[in-house]
Order: sequence, then C-alpha cells, then structure tokens
Amino acid sequence: MSEAARRFPAPGSKAELEEGSALTPRFDATGLVTAVVTDAERGGLLMVAHMNAEALDLTIRTGIAHYWSRSRGSLWKKGETSGALQSVREIRVDCDQDAVWLKVSVAKPEDTCHTHRDTCFYRTVAMGPDGGRLTAG
Amino acid sequence: MSEAARRFPAPGSKAELEEGSALTPRFDATGLVTAVVTDAERGGLLMVAHMNAEALDLTIRTGIAHYWSRSRGSLWKKGETSGALQSVREIRVDCDQDAVWLKVSVAKPEDTCHTHRDTCFYRTVAMGPDGGRLTAG
Repeated sequence: MSEAARRFPAPGSKAELEEGSALTPRFDATGLVTAVVTDAERGGLLMVAHMNAEALDLTIRTGIAHYWSRSRGSLWKKGETSGALQSVREIRVDCDQDAVWLKVSVAKPEDTCHTHRDTCFYRTVAMGPDGGRLTAG
Repeated sequence: MSEAARRFPAPGSKAELEEGSALTPRFDATGLVTAVVTDAERGGLLMVAHMNAEALDLTIRTGIAHYWSRSRGSLWKKGETSGALQSVREIRVDCDQDAVWLKVSVAKPEDTCHTHRDTCFYRTVAMGPDGGRLTAG
C-alpha cells in the first residue's frame, strides 16, 4: 500500500472530487500536491510549496505546516531550523483536489523566505509590450 | 531554439534568480510554472493554474490571463468561452522564479471555477487528529 493510500482514500469520480466531503488528494506523478500559503491576518501570498501525503497528513493533524522539499528530497517542517514556524488557521482544497490553500500565522515573518524576507514574492513583473523586467516591492 | 528560450532568457545563477531584475522563469520538466491567482480587489485565492512560456508571455504583454491547460494540452485564454476573463492588475514572481502570482479583476466572478463558483477553493478541510473531512464554505 502506498504512502498516499495509507493516509488518504483514492480519488473517486469527478462528482465526488468536486462535490464530495472526502479529502482524496490527487497527488501528481511525483506524489505531490501544490500548497499555496497566505498570511492569515494580512491576506498576502507568502509562498508556494509542495506536499506529499505525509506532509499533508501531518499538517492536518498537528496544525503546523509541513511540506516536501523537492530540492532536499525530504520532509520539511517549515521553520524547524529558522524558527519561522507556520501555525495553520485554515486549510482549503480546490475543485479537483490537486492544490491546497493554507492560511497561516508565522512565528518569525522576516524568515518566511529563505532570502530573509516576509514573502517569497518580493518582485513585481513589468507588464505591457516591453514587459518582463523585475522591480523590488 | 525552444519556445521558452525564444521568449525568456535562460535562468542564471542563484543570486541572479533571487536578486536580479531579469525575468528568467524556471519552467519544470513539462515546460510549466505555477500560477497563483488572487482577486485584486478582495484578496482571496481564486485558482491555481499553470503557464508555459507562451501563456506567460501573452499574459505579460496583453494584461489578460492566459494559462496552459494540462487536461486539454493547449493554450487557455481563461474566460474565452465562459466570459470570465481575468484582467491582470499585477504580476509577481517568487524567489526562485518557478511560480508567479497574478492579482486579477474577473469579468464574471460566478464562473471563475468551472463548477460555477467564484473561487476553486470552496471547501474547508477539518483539522486535528480526526481531521480530513470537507465542508462547504
């Protein structure tokens, strides 16, 4: 039995996925769903990460955000080293159950991003026919 | 020359990716970056989608959100059929340039999700030791 199957039921029909009351995540070929993480108080986007079945299960059960680090190939309890632990206030799932939305309170906002910023999205992309340049803030 | 290379410079060093002013998206093995889409006025998360180089380039140049439909295997001008076009107010990119954040105004909010809702994230996941059940709203 796979890790995912041990922790979550297998996805059912399209109707069950979209309208059912069972969490049956559609993990991708590498066993991951996308996690979108926003600030529970201020609402802004903090980061995008990925979760395998173990990370999602631990997050639901403990209320502390866990992810799967693709670069390290290991479970990642966010903030375990830096102190920027994320307390999860709410979890939502999307229509086809391949993405989750976490609203979190961050213990140490200045270390939310590994670049020592309070969000990973600290640059704006210029728009228009000549767009594409990045500016800070 | 690949589609991505024709439209965007290749990613440089870690320092250039994180601190530079050039948009050099890190498309994954299937040629996609993750797009997180929030409501420019109300702030909530609307959907998570994916973009190939063409979709990202068109979005930057036209200000109308384009994605790559993984299920259909084709470019997807969001709302072209339903009328729920997304006018992009701001685009941000994350530290390692494999995800973008679009703040959009939606022409027809009730068709943002294909299930005829104003967000794809219409269900909450119960938390705690016995968590996992989904509830509407």
